[in-house]
Parts: sequence; structure tokens; C-alpha cells
Amino acid sequence: MAAVSAVALPPRLAPPPFDPGSVWLVGAGPGDPGLLTLHALHALTVADVVLHDALVAPEILALANGRLIDVGKRAGKHRSPQLRINQRLITLARQNLRVLRLKGGDPLVFGRGGEEALALAAAGIRFRIVPGVSAGIGAAATAGIPLTHRTLAQSVVFIPGLGAGGTPPDDAALAALARGADVLVVYMARAQAGRLAERLIAAGRSPEQPVAFATDTTTPRQQVRTATLATAGETAAAIPADAPTLLVIGPVVALRDLLGAWQLIEPMRLTPPARVAGLGT
Amino acid sequence: MAAVSAVALPPRLAPPPFDPGSVWLVGAGPGDPGLLTLHALHALTVADVVLHDALVAPEILALANGRLIDVGKRAGKHRSPQLRINQRLITLARQNLRVLRLKGGDPLVFGRGGEEALALAAAGIRFRIVPGVSAGIGAAATAGIPLTHRTLAQSVVFIPGLGAGGTPPDDAALAALARGADVLVVYMARAQAGRLAERLIAAGRSPEQPVAFATDTTTPRQQVRTATLATAGETAAAIPADAPTLLVIGPVVALRDLLGAWQLIEPMRLTPPARVAGLGT
Repeated sequence: MAAVSAVALPPRLAPPPFDPGSVWLVGAGPGDPGLLTLHALHALTVADVVLHDALVAPEILALANGRLIDVGKRAGKHRSPQLRINQRLITLARQNLRVLRLKGGDPLVFGRGGEEALALAAAGIRFRIVPGVSAGIGAAATAGIPLTHRTLAQSVVFIPGLGAGGTPPDDAALAALARGADVLVVYMARAQAGRLAERLIAAGRSPEQPVAFATDTTTPRQQVRTATLATAGETAAAIPADAPTLLVIGPVVALRDLLGAWQLIEPMRLTPPARVAGLGT
Repeated sequence: MAAVSAVALPPRLAPPPFDPGSVWLVGAGPGDPGLLTLHALHALTVADVVLHDALVAPEILALANGRLIDVGKRAGKHRSPQLRINQRLITLARQNLRVLRLKGGDPLVFGRGGEEALALAAAGIRFRIVPGVSAGIGAAATAGIPLTHRTLAQSVVFIPGLGAGGTPPDDAALAALARGADVLVVYMARAQAGRLAERLIAAGRSPEQPVAFATDTTTPRQQVRTATLATAGETAAAIPADAPTLLVIGPVVALRDLLGAWQLIEPMRLTPPARVAGLGT
């Protein structure tokens, strides 16, 4: 673990106090440590204990000074039940610790942070919600896909796939979104991508509409696979089952070809490098 | 202006190079300097010139070391035409400067950053897109509104109001979104809120559905006004015309009453405080 003094905020910035006995629900962003917010970095530096999801990148966990507790597993594997996580946050806060609940992306966009905040409020524990760069927004930016564009896309909808902390929309809702939303962003999209694409085509979306799958977004391990709605299922089948996968659907995906060659995407690095394999215990 | 040495990244973090002659399109987040990303802070520190929108909070501009150029005005007032901004980015980059294009929220969610990136690519100028905490996501978090909730809301759609860098959805698209999206987030929502609410009610949304208007989100000046779809127009009329206004529509707005009393929202401060009035020139 880094020494406390090695990671500190610039001297001009005065963060709000992280009081013992309180909980910060913090979004860690999509993966690149450079997409951490200053609040998140501060919380990592001063928290006594960090309860994190499996989706938080090891480069980010390496910045923590407190005890790390992994309460999540990747898609398809076992997770700690939500009620047990809620109870654990309460118990640790009542031990007068500074408790950091760290989630990939933003804590309230399919992060189930709302449920945790409600549990803390019901228990009379003070908490702070620190928004983060949502994985879908970070993935699109790094893949060279503008989620909105003045002439191509006015509206963008975020929906969950399986295991994203929500239930995928039913047929009626999805058909309405297929007609109303210019761009769809699907979180944890791998397992159901083929079926989802079929339903969108059935609702009137063009089979030729471009789509992009982004895995391990904004990290050096990022991969982007493009396809069409018609070939989305086939493309998804080639993605490893444990890779957190964002899917962007819409005409804006085609802009990627115009931007890619000129876009810089190198993430922020740690010096010395994080010992990735040793983390998470 | 702050001296260069006063704002620096922690020594363990090695940011990617910001080369002279390149442009970084950076989201500044919703307002709280604590919601800047580490990439954004780095860019503010090393950029030679910063072209910013009027929506970027003065506390954030105070962290810049380079020359500030204001290329935006608040809703309803004059803006620099987009083509002129694109050309200016290209001209400054060709002068071998480090050019920071700083936008409120995220650069690709109603920020027109996509158009700027396309112009830079067409001119053969290297650029980086740094996503940020989108204003809608930050506003909801700070207002105590989980945008998604496992039982209340599975999908959230982002749409522009007037002056948000996009065209509001037409009647057919909005009617589909009214049926398909559990939560709607409207950017720059003040001027059209009443008419929008009427159209959503006409499409079948309950007039009693709760809504929240958030202005100057995540700053010490933040105000949240709650209403229902039926009273949204009346509530919007009381909001100052130049206040950037986010509108959240959906059942999750009601959760705010359960969270508010226990939620901490104090933003990060600067020491010494930014001389707010002297900025932007």
C-alpha cells in the first residue's frame, strides 16, 4: 500500500471533512485513475476501510491507504447480497471508522448506491454521495463516440443488462425506447446483446444501425468491437464472459471512424506501477 | 492566477503528456471543484490557453494557469458560433500551444464536443477527450435523487432543453420516451419545462409524478425546487432566466425526502478563496 503522504491533494484545495462514523458512497469512474474525481482521491487517501466492487480497476485500488474489502464479483459469479453490504456499511460506521464505499462508474447509475444511501439514512448515519464518470459516458468518449451530436443524436438512454444492478426493460418499454431514444447505452450488455438487438430490430430499428462493444473501458486493456444490430449477438459471443461490457447503439457510433486516428487515449499511470495481482484482499 | 506550483498532481500519478499543438476537450463536471477529474486538474495546470464555456464554475477557472478565453454566454444570451470556436481551437493548436477546451459537465453529452473533435480530426490535430461528471448525474446525486433504483427506475434518458447544444425531441419521440423511460433528465430545462411537462402528461405520464429542478448544481449556490409534472411550469417560472437548470422527472425524485437529512453535500473549497468576480476575462 502507498504511504499516506504519497497521495495527497494539491495544497490549494480544501476538501470537506471525512468524519469518522460517516460513509462516502463514491463513484470511481470507468477505470483510468485519471478519471477519478478529486473527492474520490481524497476519500481513498483518508478512508479507514474501502468496500469496493470487483469492477473498480486495480490501478485505483492501489491508491487506497485503508483496508480493502472486496464485496463484489464479476458478472455471472457470486456477489455479496445487497442487504449484507448495507449492514456491513452500518456496522463499520458504528465502529467510528471512515467508511468508503467505492463503485465503478457512478454510484447512482445502476450502482445500487441509492439502496445503500436509503439504508444509511434509515440507520441515522451521515453519508456523502460523490458522483463519478459513469462507465457508459467514459467508454463512449474513449472509443471516439460522441453520445450526442447536434444533427445525429439528441437523446441518449441508459439501460441495464443482466447483473448491472437493475432489470432489463420489458418488451413494451424497450419498443418505446427503440422509437424515442436516438442512442442507447447498455450496461453489462454481453450476455443479452443478441436478444436485445433482435427486440430493437423488431421495434423498427434498422438492422444496419452501427453498435460498439467496449470492454475494460479507459484502461490499457480496453477493447472496442464494432458491429451492426444484425451482427451484435455474434460479436458479443466472442467477448470473454467475465469482461464488463458496455454497448452503445446508434448512428453516432459511425463517427468513431472519423475520430480514431487523431484521438489520444493513454490513461494516467502510477509510479511505481501498482502491483495489480496483489490487490483486492 | 494561481502559481503553477500551487496546483499539482500527487507525485505517484503520472499523467499522459499534454503536448504543445494538441487540444484536450475536457469535461469540468457540474461545478464543485471536487468533481474535477485528475486529468482535468492536470490539464488546467499545464494548458497554455483555456477556452471555456460560461457554465464552468469560477472556482474551477481559478485553478487555471494559462490564459482564459470565455467562448460562451449563459442561456438566452449571445454565444460564439460553433464554427468560430472550432476554428479558434485549430488556430491556437497550430501556434503550438497546449489548448484546453473546458466544458461544463461532460464534453460529449450536449456539450457539442463531438463537433469540435470532428473539426480537429479533419484539420489533422491530435486531441484527447476527457469525460467528466455529467451535470445531470451530479445534480441528481447532490439533490439526493438516485437516477436508477432496482425497484423504481431501470432506465434513464438524457434530453436537451433549449440552448443545451441540441434540439429538444419532437412530439413523437417525446411520447415514446414518456412511455419507455422511467426517469427523464432534461438539460437547460427552465424555458420549456411547462410545455414539456404538458406533453409528457398528454403521452400518459401521471400529472402527480414528482419532478425536481436543480440550479447551479453541486456549488454552494445550488438550489433544488421540487414540484409535480402538473406544477412544473409554474415552478420553472420562478427560476432566474440565467440559471443553468437541470430537471429530473420520475418516481425516484420522491426518495430525496428520505435521504436529505443525512446527506452531506459541502463542496471542495479553494484556499485562498477564488476571486470569483475577477474571472472570465
